[in-house]
Amino acid sequence: MKQTLMAMLKERKEEMIRIRRHLHEHPELSFQEQQTAQYILDFYKGKDVAVQSNVGNGYGIVVTIKGGKPGKTIALRADFDALPIVEETGLPFQSKNEGVMHACAHDGHTAYLLVLADCLIQLKEEIPGTIKIIHQHAEEVPPGGAKSIVESGVLDDVDHIFGIHLLPMHPAGVVGYHSGYSMAGRAYLKVEIQGRGGHGSSPHKANDAIVAGAHFVTAAQTIVSRRLNPFDMGVITIGSFDGKGTFNVIRDRVTLEGDIRYMSNETKQVIETELRRIADGIETEFGVACELTFTPDYPPLYNDPEVTAFVKESLMRANDPDIREVVEYPMMSPSDDFAYYLEKIPGCYFYIGCTPKGVEQPYFNHHPKFDIDEDALLVAAKAVGCVVCAYYGLND
Amino acid sequence: MKQTLMAMLKERKEEMIRIRRHLHEHPELSFQEQQTAQYILDFYKGKDVAVQSNVGNGYGIVVTIKGGKPGKTIALRADFDALPIVEETGLPFQSKNEGVMHACAHDGHTAYLLVLADCLIQLKEEIPGTIKIIHQHAEEVPPGGAKSIVESGVLDDVDHIFGIHLLPMHPAGVVGYHSGYSMAGRAYLKVEIQGRGGHGSSPHKANDAIVAGAHFVTAAQTIVSRRLNPFDMGVITIGSFDGKGTFNVIRDRVTLEGDIRYMSNETKQVIETELRRIADGIETEFGVACELTFTPDYPPLYNDPEVTAFVKESLMRANDPDIREVVEYPMMSPSDDFAYYLEKIPGCYFYIGCTPKGVEQPYFNHHPKFDIDEDALLVAAKAVGCVVCAYYGLND
Amino acid sequence: MKQTLMAMLKERKEEMIRIRRHLHEHPELSFQEQQTAQYILDFYKGKDVAVQSNVGNGYGIVVTIKGGKPGKTIALRADFDALPIVEETGLPFQSKNEGVMHACAHDGHTAYLLVLADCLIQLKEEIPGTIKIIHQHAEEVPPGGAKSIVESGVLDDVDHIFGIHLLPMHPAGVVGYHSGYSMAGRAYLKVEIQGRGGHGSSPHKANDAIVAGAHFVTAAQTIVSRRLNPFDMGVITIGSFDGKGTFNVIRDRVTLEGDIRYMSNETKQVIETELRRIADGIETEFGVACELTFTPDYPPLYNDPEVTAFVKESLMRANDPDIREVVEYPMMSPSDDFAYYLEKIPGCYFYIGCTPKGVEQPYFNHHPKFDIDEDALLVAAKAVGCVVCAYYGLND
Amino acid sequence: MKQTLMAMLKERKEEMIRIRRHLHEHPELSFQEQQTAQYILDFYKGKDVAVQSNVGNGYGIVVTIKGGKPGKTIALRADFDALPIVEETGLPFQSKNEGVMHACAHDGHTAYLLVLADCLIQLKEEIPGTIKIIHQHAEEVPPGGAKSIVESGVLDDVDHIFGIHLLPMHPAGVVGYHSGYSMAGRAYLKVEIQGRGGHGSSPHKANDAIVAGAHFVTAAQTIVSRRLNPFDMGVITIGSFDGKGTFNVIRDRVTLEGDIRYMSNETKQVIETELRRIADGIETEFGVACELTFTPDYPPLYNDPEVTAFVKESLMRANDPDIREVVEYPMMSPSDDFAYYLEKIPGCYFYIGCTPKGVEQPYFNHHPKFDIDEDALLVAAKAVGCVVCAYYGLND
Repeated sequence: MKQTLMAMLKERKEEMIRIRRHLHEHPELSFQEQQTAQYILDFYKGKDVAVQSNVGNGYGIVVTIKGGKPGKTIALRADFDALPIVEETGLPFQSKNEGVMHACAHDGHTAYLLVLADCLIQLKEEIPGTIKIIHQHAEEVPPGGAKSIVESGVLDDVDHIFGIHLLPMHPAGVVGYHSGYSMAGRAYLKVEIQGRGGHGSSPHKANDAIVAGAHFVTAAQTIVSRRLNPFDMGVITIGSFDGKGTFNVIRDRVTLEGDIRYMSNETKQVIETELRRIADGIETEFGVACELTFTPDYPPLYNDPEVTAFVKESLMRANDPDIREVVEYPMMSPSDDFAYYLEKIPGCYFYIGCTPKGVEQPYFNHHPKFDIDEDALLVAAKAVGCVVCAYYGLND
Repeated sequence: MKQTLMAMLKERKEEMIRIRRHLHEHPELSFQEQQTAQYILDFYKGKDVAVQSNVGNGYGIVVTIKGGKPGKTIALRADFDALPIVEETGLPFQSKNEGVMHACAHDGHTAYLLVLADCLIQLKEEIPGTIKIIHQHAEEVPPGGAKSIVESGVLDDVDHIFGIHLLPMHPAGVVGYHSGYSMAGRAYLKVEIQGRGGHGSSPHKANDAIVAGAHFVTAAQTIVSRRLNPFDMGVITIGSFDGKGTFNVIRDRVTLEGDIRYMSNETKQVIETELRRIADGIETEFGVACELTFTPDYPPLYNDPEVTAFVKESLMRANDPDIREVVEYPMMSPSDDFAYYLEKIPGCYFYIGCTPKGVEQPYFNHHPKFDIDEDALLVAAKAVGCVVCAYYGLND
Repeated sequence: MKQTLMAMLKERKEEMIRIRRHLHEHPELSFQEQQTAQYILDFYKGKDVAVQSNVGNGYGIVVTIKGGKPGKTIALRADFDALPIVEETGLPFQSKNEGVMHACAHDGHTAYLLVLADCLIQLKEEIPGTIKIIHQHAEEVPPGGAKSIVESGVLDDVDHIFGIHLLPMHPAGVVGYHSGYSMAGRAYLKVEIQGRGGHGSSPHKANDAIVAGAHFVTAAQTIVSRRLNPFDMGVITIGSFDGKGTFNVIRDRVTLEGDIRYMSNETKQVIETELRRIADGIETEFGVACELTFTPDYPPLYNDPEVTAFVKESLMRANDPDIREVVEYPMMSPSDDFAYYLEKIPGCYFYIGCTPKGVEQPYFNHHPKFDIDEDALLVAAKAVGCVVCAYYGLND
Repeated sequence: MKQTLMAMLKERKEEMIRIRRHLHEHPELSFQEQQTAQYILDFYKGKDVAVQSNVGNGYGIVVTIKGGKPGKTIALRADFDALPIVEETGLPFQSKNEGVMHACAHDGHTAYLLVLADCLIQLKEEIPGTIKIIHQHAEEVPPGGAKSIVESGVLDDVDHIFGIHLLPMHPAGVVGYHSGYSMAGRAYLKVEIQGRGGHGSSPHKANDAIVAGAHFVTAAQTIVSRRLNPFDMGVITIGSFDGKGTFNVIRDRVTLEGDIRYMSNETKQVIETELRRIADGIETEFGVACELTFTPDYPPLYNDPEVTAFVKESLMRANDPDIREVVEYPMMSPSDDFAYYLEKIPGCYFYIGCTPKGVEQPYFNHHPKFDIDEDALLVAAKAVGCVVCAYYGLND
């Protein structure tokens, strides 16, 4: 089946590009992707598959392609929300929704997967198993869509899951992978320190919340420097120290907010425990109240080593001119809610190169000038198609 | 003359109270005291004295009482501005100017001095010298009125200066003094730390201004704890740490503002020098730019020891039933721009008790419920009158 | 009696000097003053007084002079121990006990008091009361001798107590006083921080005691800078940070030792409370054990205001050519165990000027070149004699 | 040749064990390995090879095996020094040199390489190139032996270099590798802070070196937490804070010593730069002198990715029952002066499993009870032999 599938995809390359450009022109913010969802639903209209809409906490769509024979169930996912960014690419199909932009390539993800899904639908009689296509809403804004889709139960019967992200580090034709922990998990931190205000000239009658807050910031540095395994990745950024007040009045209260990153749940645990220790310690030391909120967000993304080895192998044996190279990627600090699927279902999230042609230093995802080489859409479709064929033993 | 003066003042006690109540009902903010100044000018209308209005940087008034004989020149000062406070006393003569209140007793200062000045005008033939009555605007808001009055030159010929403040620590009848440094000087501090912003997950590509700011706060504590003479008073309060931002974006800039207090110019100098050291050190340590502004405001108020001894002695020998007790006061942390006069002219600024009758724990100056015992107006007038008589050797 | 006493003292000026030189030549360390005590005991041999030796925890001597009439009991104290200092004065009567030196003028204290006591013994019939002469051992080394003498009960019947210290800030003839808290109290601080050692390359497997100790030092600065009344004196010096170890082994333990100073028991209390807070907070923050010992030593020396006013008045009315001036002294940071007497008995500890003649910048107490103007011995004797006479109403 | 070599090695397994036990019984400290070196020299006596002794800064030995045909030159290295540890294994061949122990398996390294070298000497006619056997002294104590051997020029003609370390993480039969940066580099840090001493009660007259030192420690934490890429390994341990002094004397000087670890020269550079920044900043902030010494020691060990891939491939195709498994190892925090060879010559340093049989939680290198499974000696010999054969294309 693989030969047939590859040929079908190649023929529909222009269609992928057309779809991507349409989506790019009409981006929608996370949890507000009504038109985009409708566009996807329209695509599947009349096709011989079961389509579930409004899955999870938003406009999620799950399309179930039942193969001609019994067998395992896999899922393929593409996200479709956009970002609150004013586009500056100057492309002919630039965003018509001012202030919203497909700056993270989700337009491309959706475009390739629609066409791939359609091909698989056409070839489904040959497939010994079931393929669930997940068109996911709201990847960009926590709590995201993935968690709720998992919790909806619609994936309970899925054996393995796959997904890709377009990244401009390499040109189209290069596919990247990383085994094990691959993308960072993150948490939101809030620390509210309540002291006692007073006149600037009488510190002994007050409890200075700014001094306590400064000590919190200073002490928090020791978590990364002394509590984490030096080989583990961990970041604690206090991005906000809200202590604006009147120069001669001792502040009674400051609020700190921060961003926590980690590559494993063990690291997350150490960071949370130690932050709570420090908050408790600061309470005692300075006689203030110190309320700490630690809200984990997307978990670290863990690619199952066996599944990843299988993906790598499948791609290296793709023997296709459009999949020119398979390279190992390092761990990366961004987060993706694909991690929620992988907490439940073994799978692999991998990377499709898309540096725009002729560009040496491409703009990265989330930049107002971010762009892709649209050849990468076919690469994505073929790469995922390859993995599907290999999975079902349809490599001919 | 003293006997005559004391008797005259006693007779006009009710007038002082009436004037005080009128002013209390019509308070005006610093630098906006147009009606108050007019009221004072009207008071002197038709009297045989030289009156200068609009002295200095506001509505300052200087009244020159030329005595019948040649001799030394002294100045007596009362301030007349009010505060931006919503009065909560419920007095029948409560402020009619909503949001403005005579919560620092400047109404009382002006009331007693007008009557005292009028008496002195009537007795001026007996006085061997010249008395300058200063009705000062804008004591509450830096740069204040005093500095500009000094700079106007109108006091260049003054040999000594005296003033009083009503304070509710003691009841009416008690007069307080402190020799040497008596009230705190203060300065305004601003520290602008410019780092480099960046994504919360990549601290190495940014320069975290919040971390640098926290270290500034921490290091600044060592000035009071280790650089000052432990017997000297000094305060560094960072009242504002403006570092509000987005939790997952490394802050590029924070602004600290603070209030500095000291009882001597030497201490001010040490604090400024060390704060600049720390700002420079933080620049180097964290690779940020750190701009420090140190703006001295009212200097520490220094009562000339000889003049103060003279005031104390004069009051202890007052032999007047209304001046019941003369007590030594400790140094105090508030500031007063009377300090500017004392930088130029030896003199003494002393305190008149005014605890409202029947009150155990009086509200202090600047409180919305601050009130005085109006008996204190006569005490103030008599005390200053006593000092004037003693100064000119008119103790009979 | 005063006239007689003053005359007797003047006659025995040379004897005072001779005694002082003898003692200076034979100094003994605190708690080892056997020869000195014997010398004093020999002095009283054959005189009509009760002598108690070995009072308290050392060679303390109390001599009781019972007056001819009943009345109040007062105590006069002089200390007699020396310091472990190699003398560099080059005086003809330089220390013969190499490495030990009367560098704090206790030789002078003892010399004047022996002669004064002898005179009082001779005049005792006129005295309406009892005078206890305290020759105190071991002032220089905590716990000192004073506390144990108080605890011995020998002073239980004493109504008031007096003592002097020779200080070279003023020349002989000047007597100084300070009312209220006058000399600093002090405490010894020890903080033992127990973390967990480990290899330098694996901080996450250890608990770094040096990092915890550094945070203790940093946080402790905020006590003086933010918890004390800015007008109160307080010092926290960490004089020892014992964390020497191997560069690549994480320290499991550090020991801090410090010196605490304060001018009131309230300040002592705040400092102790806050140090304990910080120790507890550091325990929680860093997961270490943090054992804090706070051992108060000599308390702040508090001169009873009424007794001090009496002493001042008596001296100002001394009308004696050898007592030329009575001046107010500032609070001072040294400590003296005379403070223990004053905790129990109202009294006054005052100062006798002794700048060596012709010297502008004298060496201070505890310096290897410290010296006194021996004229000050007579001043001391007369000053204390004056106070005694005034106390018993024997001013003629 | 491979088949022959493997067979020869297998036959001499007992000899390897015998040699290892001899060396184990007679360990010598770094730079003092006279007997060990003599033992090695004796081994080569009479063999047809060039032997250089006393190479570099100690007892280093280089044996040159010139092959029968021209070709590339490779080097194989084993270290032979022992550690200052009191052995606690209780083995029959326990150290006879009390307090010195082969606790890092260098006895095993030397044993296998001697026998392998002898086999290669016997087969040398078949080898198209030259093999240099390095018996290296003093790996355990910086500056180590490797650097000096490189500098001696004796390896100037070497194309590639190989070495192994016995590690007990895996049983005998498992060989480990890591590509790129594999073992940590390290540096020695010394910071001497010179303030100004003084009496504990007068901080303003001194410059407290302990407070400055505490701030150095605190600020240094921000290098790892904020200046390093969170994916990069870096450690700054201050292992010694030498500030012991008298509790009531302000310390004039403290000396900090520390251990720095990193996995790349870029990280080393960032750490050094930032430490210098902080030292300079502390100087300015606290007015102290702050002298910083940063002495890099063994660099991070970098396995050339191509050579490592070749080693891995060779081992995976070994097709030998004694080389059961080839696994990827993580980066590790210990250092090895093999890194110096790899700075100059591309090569690969890999790992030979040696968990003692029947042991679940083996003692690690440098532990007094460290032991190995002697089967690992044959594995080491075969693994290195395999690589040599593959290198010269002698896989038959």
